[in-house]
Amino acid sequence: MDTLTRLEATVTERLSADPASSYVASLTARGVPAIARKLGEETTEAVIAALSGSDDELVGEAADVLFHLTVLLAAKGIRLERVMAELERREGTSGLDEKASRSR
Amino acid sequence: MDTLTRLEATVTERLSADPASSYVASLTARGVPAIARKLGEETTEAVIAALSGSDDELVGEAADVLFHLTVLLAAKGIRLERVMAELERREGTSGLDEKASRSR
Amino acid sequence: MDTLTRLEATVTERLSADPASSYVASLTARGVPAIARKLGEETTEAVIAALSGSDDELVGEAADVLFHLTVLLAAKGIRLERVMAELERREGTSGLDEKASRSR
Amino acid sequence: MDTLTRLEATVTERLSADPASSYVASLTARGVPAIARKLGEETTEAVIAALSGSDDELVGEAADVLFHLTVLLAAKGIRLERVMAELERREGTSGLDEKASRSR
Repeated sequence: MDTLTRLEATVTERLSADPASSYVASLTARGVPAIARKLGEETTEAVIAALSGSDDELVGEAADVLFHLTVLLAAKGIRLERVMAELERREGTSGLDEKASRSR
Repeated sequence: MDTLTRLEATVTERLSADPASSYVASLTARGVPAIARKLGEETTEAVIAALSGSDDELVGEAADVLFHLTVLLAAKGIRLERVMAELERREGTSGLDEKASRSR
Repeated sequence: MDTLTRLEATVTERLSADPASSYVASLTARGVPAIARKLGEETTEAVIAALSGSDDELVGEAADVLFHLTVLLAAKGIRLERVMAELERREGTSGLDEKASRSR
Repeated sequence: MDTLTRLEATVTERLSADPASSYVASLTARGVPAIARKLGEETTEAVIAALSGSDDELVGEAADVLFHLTVLLAAKGIRLERVMAELERREGTSGLDEKASRSR
């Protein structure tokens, strides 16, 4: 099982844990806007790390982006595999680039 | 091989393709700030889709976030597996939540 | 009258103009999420300009941020003077910095 | 004098104050990336307040955006009046909307 799928399983399990003992549960208890805000903040930090930080900083911020995107999807009841299927679909039919380009 | 690893391979291969025929190459040719900007924009769209869009819209925007994060890392010469190792590390030593909580 | 107040008057007047002839009207017709998205995008561009662009670029992006923040407030029916009063209030009572610091 | 111009004067004066007693000085001491990050975070919060918060929350977040944009410009040595002149210029020659539209 790959890392994100395992992360998704852990996150989903903790959604309804005790907010006092779980970061995922405490964040989720504050609602989707609070999770979305964390995703936005971590992405801002990733953007800044990419432009003026070290590779290690960017790795850490990219991990934070993936973590909070996973929490956001789990809190909305959306399976990560739907997102992966969408990435596959874009790549599959006509080449990733052409597809990506058409969607802009 | 999981979807993101495959995506990373495709993206890495196209970094140096002809910008006229490849979205990845044309974006990369504009430099890291341009890629970072796209990542920021797609995350804003994911945040908005989470708050006021449909599940399908959020799936599409989440795919865009993962796609541009992959391009950003590839353009910086950072392997996705470093990010996954960081996620594993946080989870592995002391529980994902505790670690995540400590890093905030 | 200062620039932002004049901008607000122009923007408010155009909210209900013909979307075919007015950018403000066409953006507003697409709804608050579309305006919020533009604000997010322009801020990402301002952040990137601050880190890797010229002063002229940052000036242009800062103008875009102010413009879209003005449109967002106008579309929500919120007067700019409420925001200015909030800034004054923070500064007035106990010193801008102390107040700002307390609110973080 | 309007609020933003007064804010700019206060902020500029505090740029070189003691970081221990001034939020502006402590933020500026951490560098342009730290200020840019705060601007990005506050804008994410404004976007979220616009979509799922109260008017009062949006007013507070809009004030935070203006405050940190002012700090960012001051830290870069860029006068707010250059940004206002850019807004005036877009409006002046050919109508705000047409200009804004052309610049997208």
